[in-house]
Amino acid sequence: MASSPSLAGRAASAAQTKGLGRYFPFTRWLFNYRREDLPSDLVAGIVTAIMLIPQSMAYAQLAGLPPQIGLYASVVPLIIYALLGTSGQLSVGPVAITSLLVFSGVSTLADPGSARYIQLVLLLALMVGVVKLLLGLFRMGVILNFISHPVLAAFTTASALIIAAGQLKYILGYSIAGPHIYDILYNAVVGLGMTNPVTLTIGGASIAMLLFFRKKLRPILQKAGLNPLAVTLIVSGAPLVTVLLGSIVTWALRLDLTAGVAVVGSIPAGLSPLSWPSPNVADAQALMPAAAAIILVSVVESIAVAKALASKRRAVIDPNQELIALGAANIAAGLFSGYPVTGGFARSVVNYQAGAITGLASLVTAGGIALILLFFTPLFYFLPQAVLAATVIVAVFGLVDLKEPAHIAQANRSDAVTWGITFAAVLLLGIEAGIFVGVGVSLALYLWRTSRPHIAVVGQIGESEVYRNILRYDVKTWPHVVAVRVDESLYFANTRYLEDELLRIIAERPEVKHLVLIGSAINFIDSSALHTLEALIQSLRDAGVQLHLAEIKGPVMDGLKRAHFVDKLGTEHIHLSTHQAMRALGCA
Amino acid sequence: MASSPSLAGRAASAAQTKGLGRYFPFTRWLFNYRREDLPSDLVAGIVTAIMLIPQSMAYAQLAGLPPQIGLYASVVPLIIYALLGTSGQLSVGPVAITSLLVFSGVSTLADPGSARYIQLVLLLALMVGVVKLLLGLFRMGVILNFISHPVLAAFTTASALIIAAGQLKYILGYSIAGPHIYDILYNAVVGLGMTNPVTLTIGGASIAMLLFFRKKLRPILQKAGLNPLAVTLIVSGAPLVTVLLGSIVTWALRLDLTAGVAVVGSIPAGLSPLSWPSPNVADAQALMPAAAAIILVSVVESIAVAKALASKRRAVIDPNQELIALGAANIAAGLFSGYPVTGGFARSVVNYQAGAITGLASLVTAGGIALILLFFTPLFYFLPQAVLAATVIVAVFGLVDLKEPAHIAQANRSDAVTWGITFAAVLLLGIEAGIFVGVGVSLALYLWRTSRPHIAVVGQIGESEVYRNILRYDVKTWPHVVAVRVDESLYFANTRYLEDELLRIIAERPEVKHLVLIGSAINFIDSSALHTLEALIQSLRDAGVQLHLAEIKGPVMDGLKRAHFVDKLGTEHIHLSTHQAMRALGCA
Repeated sequence: MASSPSLAGRAASAAQTKGLGRYFPFTRWLFNYRREDLPSDLVAGIVTAIMLIPQSMAYAQLAGLPPQIGLYASVVPLIIYALLGTSGQLSVGPVAITSLLVFSGVSTLADPGSARYIQLVLLLALMVGVVKLLLGLFRMGVILNFISHPVLAAFTTASALIIAAGQLKYILGYSIAGPHIYDILYNAVVGLGMTNPVTLTIGGASIAMLLFFRKKLRPILQKAGLNPLAVTLIVSGAPLVTVLLGSIVTWALRLDLTAGVAVVGSIPAGLSPLSWPSPNVADAQALMPAAAAIILVSVVESIAVAKALASKRRAVIDPNQELIALGAANIAAGLFSGYPVTGGFARSVVNYQAGAITGLASLVTAGGIALILLFFTPLFYFLPQAVLAATVIVAVFGLVDLKEPAHIAQANRSDAVTWGITFAAVLLLGIEAGIFVGVGVSLALYLWRTSRPHIAVVGQIGESEVYRNILRYDVKTWPHVVAVRVDESLYFANTRYLEDELLRIIAERPEVKHLVLIGSAINFIDSSALHTLEALIQSLRDAGVQLHLAEIKGPVMDGLKRAHFVDKLGTEHIHLSTHQAMRALGCA
Repeated sequence: MASSPSLAGRAASAAQTKGLGRYFPFTRWLFNYRREDLPSDLVAGIVTAIMLIPQSMAYAQLAGLPPQIGLYASVVPLIIYALLGTSGQLSVGPVAITSLLVFSGVSTLADPGSARYIQLVLLLALMVGVVKLLLGLFRMGVILNFISHPVLAAFTTASALIIAAGQLKYILGYSIAGPHIYDILYNAVVGLGMTNPVTLTIGGASIAMLLFFRKKLRPILQKAGLNPLAVTLIVSGAPLVTVLLGSIVTWALRLDLTAGVAVVGSIPAGLSPLSWPSPNVADAQALMPAAAAIILVSVVESIAVAKALASKRRAVIDPNQELIALGAANIAAGLFSGYPVTGGFARSVVNYQAGAITGLASLVTAGGIALILLFFTPLFYFLPQAVLAATVIVAVFGLVDLKEPAHIAQANRSDAVTWGITFAAVLLLGIEAGIFVGVGVSLALYLWRTSRPHIAVVGQIGESEVYRNILRYDVKTWPHVVAVRVDESLYFANTRYLEDELLRIIAERPEVKHLVLIGSAINFIDSSALHTLEALIQSLRDAGVQLHLAEIKGPVMDGLKRAHFVDKLGTEHIHLSTHQAMRALGCA
């Protein structure tokens, strides 16, 4: 493959990929690995590992799990994804929103951190994995398209706020209860007197450091003339530096004993142990909403990131194969003591910027985490939980986008309503219920819109064959013929509305003898609509008006013929174009 | 108003109806009542009453209620509908399917016939009434359009089978338990040895008589030269004759004592007593699915009947006012010891054939039933339940339509799937669950269809300005331009599919430099689709292909402008018609 093939060539080659390469994408890069890609993949793998070490522990804490579970989730699942995924840049592992969904779904069934809690999380990972795998194998990825942009945008922003609020307890150093964000904020304010000043100082300093690294460090380093790769390396290493600094200070001053600073404590050394989530019908049923929410959100986000990065590299990804790869990675998470994983946005961008070309980068990342697990876990004994919380808070800052609803409202008011309802539902009802409310609202608004279609009376533009809305264009009309364009497919939800509108149009034009229904925007006619049209032929005839059809599309016409509607209407009442219909009726 | 005004005139006058006449339609006919309509309304009212007497008792039995409740439901609700409804022909009262829904919804909460059962049925009628009234007042009748023709057809046929099966116990004379039709049929067969031969004889003879009256009597009377009104009177009186005959035979031979034939027994004399269904949140919640199912099914059926009969008389009905009238009638049922009522199909046709012109016919019917309640209830003491069951069975025979799925399949295969799933769901899961499954399936199939839109590459027909699918027509194309028509609005569920298909089309045509997207079938573009289109501009540019839009409709273009999409695309890439786009690009 050339280094920059044409889009056409790429799409064609992806479409033609068959056999081994299709189901085991690693065979496409591993067996013809190009030596010159090695340094780039190596560096990217190491950079991503450095970023993933604090993230995986912090997100595990967010999910109500001990830190090693986050590290376990960053080894075997990454290897599996590297072998089966079609993106060389996607960085799979723990991510913030999935971690929150795990916490909200499982913490109602067991105490966070308990053995039963971990068992349930493993089962959840297995469920998520199996469903994703099946969706991919049966090429059903299309059903994930039912999560719309406004729903995802509102969900992400609201979840980020919930995540940040949930971390307050680690920063302030006292327990803050409450399933909902308003409980959390209320209890946080009520308990302010219990604040641990040392913990707050560590947390606040960490947030300040991380924000500085994130916002200011890159321009400074760039001005200093460092090469871009070094800049990326230093910037992505910043959270790890913060973590190590926090640990050293805490250890040096023994703040865990002298000031009651909560620390991570001992992390067992050794690679991810095998696990077997004992499947149990009642547990699986209880976990189903959480699994559905995780699948919806994580897959959409992850495939969108992979697509965007692929497009920058002029490569294509196969969404169904991505589902298979993410499914297998989650099954691996369930079997190797991890928890649900997916492709993270920020980490994937870093992986891409650091030069990841093939799945080898992910294999290197997994190797890095494995080394930490084998030899360096004691390093994190004195890591304050407040530093991990700071990592989470700064990471989710970037997810809060309060300008997006304004952008959405410009394009489409009902999408802005969807944004608002989803946002409110996530904050007030919780994130699982929120996502389902959002999906439900966007579907309901779509159905509502199609049930009241736009119906335009049209006339001829000049002497052309173009017919447009009489309310928008200066057009020619004739008294004895009215041409009406219905801007929607005819189906059960809008046929009665159509009937009422057509009768109203006729009622307003007593001289009309012919009604031409223009089907250029009618993509199908279901049997309910057919019933209505048959009744309409008769009621129009009773009123001395003949029904005509024009610009009916091929597949729609096939259906009308099969159902003998054409016989009932008469073939002389069917016209190829509006212009031909008008000429046949003595106009134009 | 002339006796046969034009359709246009009628529709206009209905649309202009304001003030008192709009909300109290009876003011339109009662205060200018024409003397010459009186004989016709009187006869129709009496004929309908004769038909309603046995029906109301039989349907009450089907609903698990004592017979007088059916009669009570046929007095005050009819008066209320006559005053508020817009159809002079619709015969409101107990109907078969609503009665079955009452039984299936309430019998799981209380023992049929018990005081608590009756209380719950009254509450159900009140709930149905209030919701219909609110839907009508807020002009939300449109939401009832979401029940499609195949769902209603399958539901009606399957319900009729369930109703008929449920009556077997009265015909065979032994108790047959079972919530589902398969339980009932199994238990019926198992218990055949317990058949009461006298009851079976009465039931069988009644069915035979009723079928004879229904199928053969009309042609015989017509041949005998009777006038049509007399024919209608005799034919609709047949069930009452059967009922009286059955009662007389049972009384004469005292079959209730000598042969154990179950009879109706004493019916308290007197008009419908006032009732007050004590509202209770838990009960209301438990009844909600039944109420929703009754509202969906009964309103759709009832408005369809009223519309059809109005159209025959060149009159119009107002669906929202119908909802208000049916709502008030059901509230009256709840307050005057009735049960949920609606407009019955067969009875309304008889009312129409017997000459009903205004609501006065319904007032006469209500008066007839009131007379029965006041003076003639002892007549029905010896009425065998088997005769009532025979009335029900013969009435629902006409609802079974097993040819309809074949008709539906001709028009639309996915509608046939909807029919099949709804039919199976009603029989296997029960009628409430069945109707909701049906509505869900028809919505899901609609969404599935719109999520994979038809996309056609088009070319020029001859030298015309008409462009059609290259696969269906012999058309002219050019190598450097490809014109693509998308036959669906662009929204979240189909944007990714569209993107993939457009990239595939480009990939198959390496020489293409311009892609013209034809928007004649695009009725709206939501914000998710806008995001995708923005990304598409860029990825096509990367591949050396320019995106153009043609035939974008006015409202859609307004949205594209507001969202600054037009700025991003460039106004020179937007064309009024496909032909103009092709000419601008050096073709045609």
